[in-house]
Amino acid sequence: MGGPEIERLIGLLAKLPGLGPRSARRTALRLLQEPQTRLLPLAQALQDAARTVRACATCGNLDSTDPCQVCADPHRDRAIICVVEGVGDLWALERAHVHRGTYHVLGGTLSPLAGVGPDDLNVPSLLARVAAGGIGEVILALGATVDGATTTHWLTERLRPSGVAVTRVAQGVPIGGALDVLDDGTLAAALRARRAF
Amino acid sequence: MGGPEIERLIGLLAKLPGLGPRSARRTALRLLQEPQTRLLPLAQALQDAARTVRACATCGNLDSTDPCQVCADPHRDRAIICVVEGVGDLWALERAHVHRGTYHVLGGTLSPLAGVGPDDLNVPSLLARVAAGGIGEVILALGATVDGATTTHWLTERLRPSGVAVTRVAQGVPIGGALDVLDDGTLAAALRARRAF
Repeated sequence: MGGPEIERLIGLLAKLPGLGPRSARRTALRLLQEPQTRLLPLAQALQDAARTVRACATCGNLDSTDPCQVCADPHRDRAIICVVEGVGDLWALERAHVHRGTYHVLGGTLSPLAGVGPDDLNVPSLLARVAAGGIGEVILALGATVDGATTTHWLTERLRPSGVAVTRVAQGVPIGGALDVLDDGTLAAALRARRAF
Repeated sequence: MGGPEIERLIGLLAKLPGLGPRSARRTALRLLQEPQTRLLPLAQALQDAARTVRACATCGNLDSTDPCQVCADPHRDRAIICVVEGVGDLWALERAHVHRGTYHVLGGTLSPLAGVGPDDLNVPSLLARVAAGGIGEVILALGATVDGATTTHWLTERLRPSGVAVTRVAQGVPIGGALDVLDDGTLAAALRARRAF
């Protein structure tokens, strides 16, 4: 097939999430057939991103400015911190325009089995932000997994003495979701958290 | 979300075949979270490929050498040219190790409706290779589409006076394929081309 440069490009593309060997070959071919309009712009964009993008020292978001756009935005409510596992979760919440406060990216969840403790995550920086004062509410927006629940519980206990309100995102039936395809755990949570009209 | 560098990277990734906006975001995030091991190597591989990869002047294959590895290989049978529509087809045949001759990449198919004529493809260079002599067989390995069949027919007529054997790949039931999911055209072709044991 192609030379080592093509093989190496296909190999790196095949390691991207969602691209297997077959789609990596197709992608490489498309890029190679349009070097000026596809290949070189992508190479440049990757290098620009590598040069400029850093984790925000305050919240852990990835951005080409530090503090990040969210932390630097004067219109955001600094008294409300939404705690998420990863930057992808932050991006999803921003796309939905549902949170007007700031964020804190943990970088994962506590996992006693995997040996992940608070000091392996951005937990100390969260506790420091809360201890510095001016925070009214910490929203825990972690995944509804075992480790997510463990982390939510641990953070709730740990933040309780600080006096800030600690809330967590609701669990239940996803909007647009049918009940008959949901797992037992979701159905139980949705029933437990039922509300009157 | 991120700054303009991140937005631009996501935008370019989303234009790759097989990656939509959602998977482009996921891919960008993965790259940004591992700049040294993922992002920069991919940027480098893209630039290396852009610098080195060219279309082979003989056959049209993409490679970092010209003539390409196939044309330069002394063990390939130069008397047999396999004509394909695109480089992806050439790669597929090479992966299957089923052709010991050389190739000729047309860069598409003849399409009177779309205004694609012989001079818009690498047809003149194919005719020149055959006219230069030393060719015993031209295998037409084009797709079983209307335009593929048109091109096969046109090339067969055009090459006939040269005296070389012109063959075409067989059409029929794909290996591993069940008959009841095949379209009528494939079933008809498979029956027409039936052979005795």
